[in-house]
Amino acid sequence: MDSIKIFSPSSVANLSCGFDVLGLCLDTIGDEMIIKKSKKPGVRIIKIEGENLPLSIEKNVAGVAAKSYLNKFPTEIGIEIEIYKKIKAGSGIGSSAASAVGAVFGINELLERDIKKIDLIPFALEGEKLASGEAHADNIAPAMLGGFTLIRDLKSLDIIKLPSPSELVVTIIHPKIELKTSHARAILKTQVPLKNVVKQTANIAGLISGLYSNDYNLISRSLNDEIVEKERSLLIPKYYSLKNSALEAGALGCGISGSGPSIFALSRGYIIAKEVANSFKNIISKLNIDFDIYISKINSKGVRKLT
Amino acid sequence: MDSIKIFSPSSVANLSCGFDVLGLCLDTIGDEMIIKKSKKPGVRIIKIEGENLPLSIEKNVAGVAAKSYLNKFPTEIGIEIEIYKKIKAGSGIGSSAASAVGAVFGINELLERDIKKIDLIPFALEGEKLASGEAHADNIAPAMLGGFTLIRDLKSLDIIKLPSPSELVVTIIHPKIELKTSHARAILKTQVPLKNVVKQTANIAGLISGLYSNDYNLISRSLNDEIVEKERSLLIPKYYSLKNSALEAGALGCGISGSGPSIFALSRGYIIAKEVANSFKNIISKLNIDFDIYISKINSKGVRKLT
Repeated sequence: MDSIKIFSPSSVANLSCGFDVLGLCLDTIGDEMIIKKSKKPGVRIIKIEGENLPLSIEKNVAGVAAKSYLNKFPTEIGIEIEIYKKIKAGSGIGSSAASAVGAVFGINELLERDIKKIDLIPFALEGEKLASGEAHADNIAPAMLGGFTLIRDLKSLDIIKLPSPSELVVTIIHPKIELKTSHARAILKTQVPLKNVVKQTANIAGLISGLYSNDYNLISRSLNDEIVEKERSLLIPKYYSLKNSALEAGALGCGISGSGPSIFALSRGYIIAKEVANSFKNIISKLNIDFDIYISKINSKGVRKLT
Repeated sequence: MDSIKIFSPSSVANLSCGFDVLGLCLDTIGDEMIIKKSKKPGVRIIKIEGENLPLSIEKNVAGVAAKSYLNKFPTEIGIEIEIYKKIKAGSGIGSSAASAVGAVFGINELLERDIKKIDLIPFALEGEKLASGEAHADNIAPAMLGGFTLIRDLKSLDIIKLPSPSELVVTIIHPKIELKTSHARAILKTQVPLKNVVKQTANIAGLISGLYSNDYNLISRSLNDEIVEKERSLLIPKYYSLKNSALEAGALGCGISGSGPSIFALSRGYIIAKEVANSFKNIISKLNIDFDIYISKINSKGVRKLT
């Protein structure tokens, strides 16, 4: 195998009550990457389409992740990477995570090495660190493993893949405003009232229970965030109008994707997910903001080989 | 049916990462109550053994709960209650909840009414309010329903019964010191650092996942509390020595039961649970404190009729 093509998916992190611990993998939108063997040793990014990102290995998330992997598992074979970015940088649906995950998974596949996906996560994390300044796995984990993922403990890589009820469909709206992750972090309070902590733990426990028992009503009742939504919503125009319109259209729940500005809604089935998309569109079209809207089932596989 | 005898179990609330939301039902120790029809209308407590508690309906948790139930579902039939307290008041394993649950369930059974256990909870809560000043369902719910219970939302009585892996065994040590629930509440900080909130949500999500997937290792890794243990442990002599000895003896996890002073440990199987009991005994015997130690499987049924 001299060349492979892979699909590296977008993802939703900070899933409502799962701030910093819970994410899910999307299917409709993701980057494509072609990874080729080359006679010239070393790893190079030779092409990037779709976004204006640096080709330099040290300055590119995919490059840093690739280097990190190859430092641990060196090869004599030269590697060339082509990146076709479909996920917009800064959209809040795991653009940098997709690059990092894609590079590491792709090289590992190309070299036909028998390393489990979960064990590839630390290298992808190195790439993510470049983008956000901190190692966060809440997009890396779902993009790599697929489905819903829980980061129980990042240091020990204690990551659990949760069941994903088959009728769940995600609607994403990406209002194209600039919003830096570092800014979205800075706005958070460092202390949380105990009563909100109790609600948050009750909700995430309910959500996990709902995922295991296919209880869509319980999932819906549990999809609330008590600790970051209030602050972060300030950074997103018409956030509560968008959220309320989604719930009125029948969504099970709605929240900020990652640190924004994208907003996700979870619905039971495509018909409602489309109505949610329309409700988003009705509101955002009245503003002078460009936007994208996606509808996606949950991607249960994560990053995968296309050819 | 003119008379019934019921068993109303003890329970563990505030289960590690499930502060205020998660509890489990014990089996070995529980109160017994005899509830009889009488020609004289009204409800009376005619006998209490085992604890020095008031017979007056208004001052007794079982009485208040019974009254609350009978206000909603009146009867012409007189009712007499005998209470055989086995759960020590103030032990931290749901003594007042057992009284409240037993009274309501017992009267409902005696009157052969077709009301579900979950719908009896509000009346039991009224009794619990007398004991703790606040309506908390974290002992009421497991004592009523059995197994592990999650209070997702108390107001709407959104209570979920979780699966309980069959090999789990609980060891309880009750150091007989006086510790008021109100005092144990007052010692808590009203604000929690965000990073502890993240750990707490990650752990409860891990625990719920472990319960559904019978993953004892995951249950063990998740049984941590990040928000109340540090403060409350100050009220319990040798708390960390007791906890560490339990973990060294092989317990999956160990924490404060309710607001203390009892400590619970969860183990996989009776052999380890007994070793945990011995380890507790070794430490507590060196102090000048009277104590009780119990070993119990999880009681999956909750309160039940004996005859």
